[in-house]
Amino acid sequence: MKDLLTTLENRRTIREFTDERIDEKTIQTILDALMHSPTSNGLQQASIIRITDEEKKKQIAEVGNQEYIARVPELFIFIADHYRNFRLIRDFGRNYDTTSNVDIFVQGLNDAVILATNMVSIVESMDLGAFFIGSIMNDTEKMIEILDLPKLTFPVVGVGFGHPNQSPQMKPKMPKELRVFENTYTHFEDYKETFHDYDEEMTTYYDLRDANRRVDSFSDQVYKKTLNSLEKRNKFLEVARKNSYKL
Amino acid sequence: MKDLLTTLENRRTIREFTDERIDEKTIQTILDALMHSPTSNGLQQASIIRITDEEKKKQIAEVGNQEYIARVPELFIFIADHYRNFRLIRDFGRNYDTTSNVDIFVQGLNDAVILATNMVSIVESMDLGAFFIGSIMNDTEKMIEILDLPKLTFPVVGVGFGHPNQSPQMKPKMPKELRVFENTYTHFEDYKETFHDYDEEMTTYYDLRDANRRVDSFSDQVYKKTLNSLEKRNKFLEVARKNSYKL
Repeated sequence: MKDLLTTLENRRTIREFTDERIDEKTIQTILDALMHSPTSNGLQQASIIRITDEEKKKQIAEVGNQEYIARVPELFIFIADHYRNFRLIRDFGRNYDTTSNVDIFVQGLNDAVILATNMVSIVESMDLGAFFIGSIMNDTEKMIEILDLPKLTFPVVGVGFGHPNQSPQMKPKMPKELRVFENTYTHFEDYKETFHDYDEEMTTYYDLRDANRRVDSFSDQVYKKTLNSLEKRNKFLEVARKNSYKL
Repeated sequence: MKDLLTTLENRRTIREFTDERIDEKTIQTILDALMHSPTSNGLQQASIIRITDEEKKKQIAEVGNQEYIARVPELFIFIADHYRNFRLIRDFGRNYDTTSNVDIFVQGLNDAVILATNMVSIVESMDLGAFFIGSIMNDTEKMIEILDLPKLTFPVVGVGFGHPNQSPQMKPKMPKELRVFENTYTHFEDYKETFHDYDEEMTTYYDLRDANRRVDSFSDQVYKKTLNSLEKRNKFLEVARKNSYKL
């Protein structure tokens, strides 16, 4: 197993996998370790749903609009979970109106992302390949239906992994000088100029998702991807309110 | 350097550190590796602010109401950062009204948490000790002021680390049977009964933060901690709107 520094320094998202299964003992070891992840306020306000049902995988792939999700050997969805704590409070006979505000909601989102991040880091350290799934947010209402989620829970992010069957180039990431600052936020004079080299580097990167063609510069991507933000994804808070969160 | 499975299996939050500094090369190696972290939609919508100014550390400790923050050798704040992409779009002469909706905002929150999680996992794998800081959310307006954050940025979480000067007990975490489900959400009949053993286990754990006294059962903690959620923390969305997010 590689250490996490080496893992990150060489990491690339993997979306195609061999048929080889991961043995059950390894899966359970990963899940046991994940339970020790840091958690907001110690409250463990996130849960994990493992998807083994092929029909559900297909449905989730449709929500995400990414067909490779349906084919991934291992698929996990991470949810903010305040239902468990709500029930713990209620079943002990107390006032239970304390688990649904913005603060608590965001703690749950963060807990889910912490678990997902550690899962990706662990499996990549094992030389398995993984991808993050943010696209389950395309339709959170549908995800609630697919997973039969109770009130006071919310889908946040997914992770798929398996034995890699592709070897993509490393995607160029911004140098840290553009993202790490000291004591206060660093404003650059001219972002076009400052980001010129990174923009150039990105245009020479080939993304295997798109038939080995070159990708746009980073600036172009930022513009196009944020422009295409789906209306349904912006119903996020509305769906959470429907699911009993007071936001 | 330990692997991440071993690290997590033995992890405990560390809040007290020796005076020994961490050499600058190690810090930069960690930051370089972090730049390869997964990021929502490839958009890298988070930045890191390293706090080296002692006065600022004190101010942040006051916001968090945790005096040990002021004494930690290394302190980093992770922010959602859409200002950079907003400027990239604008400086290329395009319409820039695409970087401020709920979807994009949450992508930035997630990116910040991914970076923070990997930082904690890396430093703990190096046998350094670390703590997460969720309490910067106590007063996001004040954090924006301290860090001189521009519009379209938002403080999310902090991480402090150094050489450990304490050796706390491992805090009991929920067994995975209570948090990991298959295909759909698992509802338990009676949460009081189901969580009985974990509740018991928690009451025999001593938290070094509180002078070695036993802590409450998990159910008690859930009730008290969610009840005490601060009004200011719930101004989260309001402050983000003030900082130009359309939420």
